[in-house]
Amino acid sequence: MSEAVQTLEGWYALHDFRLMDWNAWHAATPQERKLAVDELNTFLTDWQQFENDKLGSTAVYSIVGQKADFVFMHLRETLEDLNELENAFNKSSFAAYTIPVYSYVSVVELSAYLAKPGTDPMQDPDILARLKPTLPKAKHICFYPMNKKRDGGDNWYMLPSEDRKNMMRSHGMIGRSYAGKVKQIITGSVGLDDWEWGVTLFSDDPLQFKKLVYEMRFDEVSARYGEFGDFYVGNILSPDKFKSFIQI
Amino acid sequence: MSEAVQTLEGWYALHDFRLMDWNAWHAATPQERKLAVDELNTFLTDWQQFENDKLGSTAVYSIVGQKADFVFMHLRETLEDLNELENAFNKSSFAAYTIPVYSYVSVVELSAYLAKPGTDPMQDPDILARLKPTLPKAKHICFYPMNKKRDGGDNWYMLPSEDRKNMMRSHGMIGRSYAGKVKQIITGSVGLDDWEWGVTLFSDDPLQFKKLVYEMRFDEVSARYGEFGDFYVGNILSPDKFKSFIQI
Amino acid sequence: MSEAVQTLEGWYALHDFRLMDWNAWHAATPQERKLAVDELNTFLTDWQQFENDKLGSTAVYSIVGQKADFVFMHLRETLEDLNELENAFNKSSFAAYTIPVYSYVSVVELSAYLAKPGTDPMQDPDILARLKPTLPKAKHICFYPMNKKRDGGDNWYMLPSEDRKNMMRSHGMIGRSYAGKVKQIITGSVGLDDWEWGVTLFSDDPLQFKKLVYEMRFDEVSARYGEFGDFYVGNILSPDKFKSFIQI
Amino acid sequence: MSEAVQTLEGWYALHDFRLMDWNAWHAATPQERKLAVDELNTFLTDWQQFENDKLGSTAVYSIVGQKADFVFMHLRETLEDLNELENAFNKSSFAAYTIPVYSYVSVVELSAYLAKPGTDPMQDPDILARLKPTLPKAKHICFYPMNKKRDGGDNWYMLPSEDRKNMMRSHGMIGRSYAGKVKQIITGSVGLDDWEWGVTLFSDDPLQFKKLVYEMRFDEVSARYGEFGDFYVGNILSPDKFKSFIQI
Amino acid sequence: MSEAVQTLEGWYALHDFRLMDWNAWHAATPQERKLAVDELNTFLTDWQQFENDKLGSTAVYSIVGQKADFVFMHLRETLEDLNELENAFNKSSFAAYTIPVYSYVSVVELSAYLAKPGTDPMQDPDILARLKPTLPKAKHICFYPMNKKRDGGDNWYMLPSEDRKNMMRSHGMIGRSYAGKVKQIITGSVGLDDWEWGVTLFSDDPLQFKKLVYEMRFDEVSARYGEFGDFYVGNILSPDKFKSFIQI
Repeated sequence: MSEAVQTLEGWYALHDFRLMDWNAWHAATPQERKLAVDELNTFLTDWQQFENDKLGSTAVYSIVGQKADFVFMHLRETLEDLNELENAFNKSSFAAYTIPVYSYVSVVELSAYLAKPGTDPMQDPDILARLKPTLPKAKHICFYPMNKKRDGGDNWYMLPSEDRKNMMRSHGMIGRSYAGKVKQIITGSVGLDDWEWGVTLFSDDPLQFKKLVYEMRFDEVSARYGEFGDFYVGNILSPDKFKSFIQI
Repeated sequence: MSEAVQTLEGWYALHDFRLMDWNAWHAATPQERKLAVDELNTFLTDWQQFENDKLGSTAVYSIVGQKADFVFMHLRETLEDLNELENAFNKSSFAAYTIPVYSYVSVVELSAYLAKPGTDPMQDPDILARLKPTLPKAKHICFYPMNKKRDGGDNWYMLPSEDRKNMMRSHGMIGRSYAGKVKQIITGSVGLDDWEWGVTLFSDDPLQFKKLVYEMRFDEVSARYGEFGDFYVGNILSPDKFKSFIQI
Repeated sequence: MSEAVQTLEGWYALHDFRLMDWNAWHAATPQERKLAVDELNTFLTDWQQFENDKLGSTAVYSIVGQKADFVFMHLRETLEDLNELENAFNKSSFAAYTIPVYSYVSVVELSAYLAKPGTDPMQDPDILARLKPTLPKAKHICFYPMNKKRDGGDNWYMLPSEDRKNMMRSHGMIGRSYAGKVKQIITGSVGLDDWEWGVTLFSDDPLQFKKLVYEMRFDEVSARYGEFGDFYVGNILSPDKFKSFIQI
Repeated sequence: MSEAVQTLEGWYALHDFRLMDWNAWHAATPQERKLAVDELNTFLTDWQQFENDKLGSTAVYSIVGQKADFVFMHLRETLEDLNELENAFNKSSFAAYTIPVYSYVSVVELSAYLAKPGTDPMQDPDILARLKPTLPKAKHICFYPMNKKRDGGDNWYMLPSEDRKNMMRSHGMIGRSYAGKVKQIITGSVGLDDWEWGVTLFSDDPLQFKKLVYEMRFDEVSARYGEFGDFYVGNILSPDKFKSFIQI
Repeated sequence: MSEAVQTLEGWYALHDFRLMDWNAWHAATPQERKLAVDELNTFLTDWQQFENDKLGSTAVYSIVGQKADFVFMHLRETLEDLNELENAFNKSSFAAYTIPVYSYVSVVELSAYLAKPGTDPMQDPDILARLKPTLPKAKHICFYPMNKKRDGGDNWYMLPSEDRKNMMRSHGMIGRSYAGKVKQIITGSVGLDDWEWGVTLFSDDPLQFKKLVYEMRFDEVSARYGEFGDFYVGNILSPDKFKSFIQI
């Protein structure tokens, strides 16, 4: 297999964006709402237990603006696990008060562009931890999907491997300059969803999302070869904050 | 007729993607749900019988994420057969609890690019079997539609036949290197649906979808000439799993 | 007026694609369904009478897949006639059980590219018949809208008239090679609907749609200059088959 | 200010496209329908009075096909006037039986490209009348929005002023060759709506829409620089015809 | 950090576009409408108090045409503040009679392109005031999102810094020539929403929106490098006018 396809994969990821159906929520009886909230809390607790047991990880964030009210980002060992998880949630009484608006299926991926020549990346404990990560509890999340462009003279996939490596190395250096400020989780979705990658950023300061993405946009790999989907940004939603969010 | 249009066609295909309408399903009485499940099972049994009788084939898979909950991929002898099949299902009580979200009409196709020169492909029993295949019972499915690009300097249909043949041969060799790991069913939809081809992949390991599609993307035929639609990925849904999926 | 705009126009066309609202149809009482079916049959009979009287023509076909359940393709003398026809149908009790999903407004058109130099095409009885045709009762229909591209170096409308003529002549020869297998009705929609032309194909074998469109795609006029919209394909729906289609 | 931005503006325009909600209309009681029709007639009468008083103008046309059932094209002195007008209509009982499907906000505009050098166009009574026109009562209407392209080598806004002037002059000559057959109202929407211009054509013969737009498409200014949105075409809807249209 | 990413950020912005659900509003009882209006007024008063206290700012405008009936443009110190504000509104009884149709998340931004070399822009009191502005009470608003193009030869992000600076300076001079006529608020949304910037214009004369945007379109920075989203235009909606708007 060529260099081009050397990537490392870890847990599968499902980003599940939803709106609250406030009209239905208002129309529900207090008993119905109580039941729904209890079911939601059971899910939140179960997902936390999975994370504690290192069997997966779940991040829960609000989303600002009308695109969504909140997102569940789930990491699990298999596609079957993710499917069971989403089906169980979809059948719950709480889900009946939510409206699915967007989802993304991908798998945690580390690019072989950044690997040290002559080493086996699977022997690197840092890499192993990054393939099955516990998602950060940062104050803010940012998600967007992206492609590498294939458009006339700007065709990433027609470039020589060495050129792609050099550009990705320069790109990675920008990312590393945000170490401590922004945590990136790259998930690959070629063959799994509509874009080639999902990018999930975590930070305590949302301006860092803007600065990082904007700085990268001047980097040739983004400037010439990046195609970006919709951006979702939000705030961490602890179980207490979730309770307060749906309190009416 | 020119070399360009030498393709072989077999069974017609209908991919039928649907969401469950969980609110309606919850609102139904146990009797109504029982009736709906019974009707669903009758369809599943009938479709299996068609497959046993070599009159067609049907694959039933869940879909991960919000795009769909499940897909029926049907192969039948004629467009009329497919139309009758979908109409019968649409009228059923189970269908009333589902929401159609995407479908694709095509026909199993083998490309003449890969034919051995000087032979009649219709004399090849392997080719005959591939034109009217029994769909695999692999653990996972991946579906996406695609075009060959016609955009300025990257125009597949303006290339000399020999160039197209050579590129397709190289492309096919990547596919063959996944033999035993990924089974491909190519269906042609020029004149039948919005894209030129549908690609349906089956594998026991969904990472193989990612690896295959990603490796092909560096191949000139995809890198310069491939346009891809939305990707759907999922898990096999046996009658027992389907029953469990809709159990509330 | 320049050569470019010499086209001949005949009857106006309305393609009216609809889904059945099966949930509403199931919820109706037998009396309501009876009334609706009777109204539908009255329309079908009236439209047939118009066709018999050479005042217009109507084709009724099912559509395979989720895009639509059926299409009415109406030809009438004026836009007012088409508007009256659609309004009368929209007010009917049967229409209340259908969901409009796509329509197309155009006018039967013959291209002057193919005219014999030095002759008056309006003296050609074949041309006159083709401008106000009785739609075929073939087993299958295929409809798609299309444009001629205007994109950088591939700009149909900037080509010299002679080049366009030559390409259209070659294009027409492919079409003629399908004589007896595929009947084409070209309708012009510049200034009337979102694409420049509608193409409606009729055939007893749907593979001929695929072969014709695919062969043409390698022809320069399509390869470099064709832009295609969505494709709809279906089966003839006689009054008896329509009755059976909506029988529950 | 540069030559480029010399345009003359008159009345503001609102094109308001709507579908009838036939199901709601059927479900209404005869008294409710009577009330709604009376309110509609009051609006139609008021709008006619505004036109008689030269305070604005309103055209009412049906639309053929599923995109809309009718359009109100309103011209008024200010954006506030248009907003009040649409709000009053939206609150009416008739509006409750309609579904808004598309609207366009613009202002009647005359291009300075066509002005005679060395003259003050605001001294030209013909120009003044064209900036605040009474809309024609032609049998047919055609509306579409358009942009001037900014795409690589085809960038209207990068052309020298003289080139743009020459092309617009040639373009205008095509328009003038349809004098007496097609009346054009150009409205500018830069900064007001999603496209740069709206084009509203009126004619007693809808084929003239097709011929005019098709002939212009070969003109360089359209061929290389025109981008076109959706086209709407329809028939005049006098108060009597409107009454008949909604009669059930 | 390179020159390219030197921007100054102030308050976060949420543009919240909504339609009235007139059918639900008509169906409400007078008591329900009274309660909803009272809640709306409480929000309007609270938002005004925030503005008075220099803790943020809110502009309330109607929108002309079917895209929206009104927009709230909120400025607040943090993303959490904006999220709390929108959630509180969404839970209100007034919100239940509105339909969210579009929103935009961004942050007030000043471009460093325009900074005087050798000075610290954060010492400039004008700049500080512009980063946390009180929104104007002009008669009209115009909003649109935009990108800088990255398309083949027209790639803003591949240009030398000096070229970008020169073009932005020329661009800024057009903007300044509208001083006193149009007030611009530029908000950055890289990493926050789907476009790179939001542009909100305020003026007492909506023709100035058209003239400004049209004049800029001939400027190379827009002509070659600007990509524009949908445009929304409207009129100021004081509390009294809002009361009148929803009066039925």
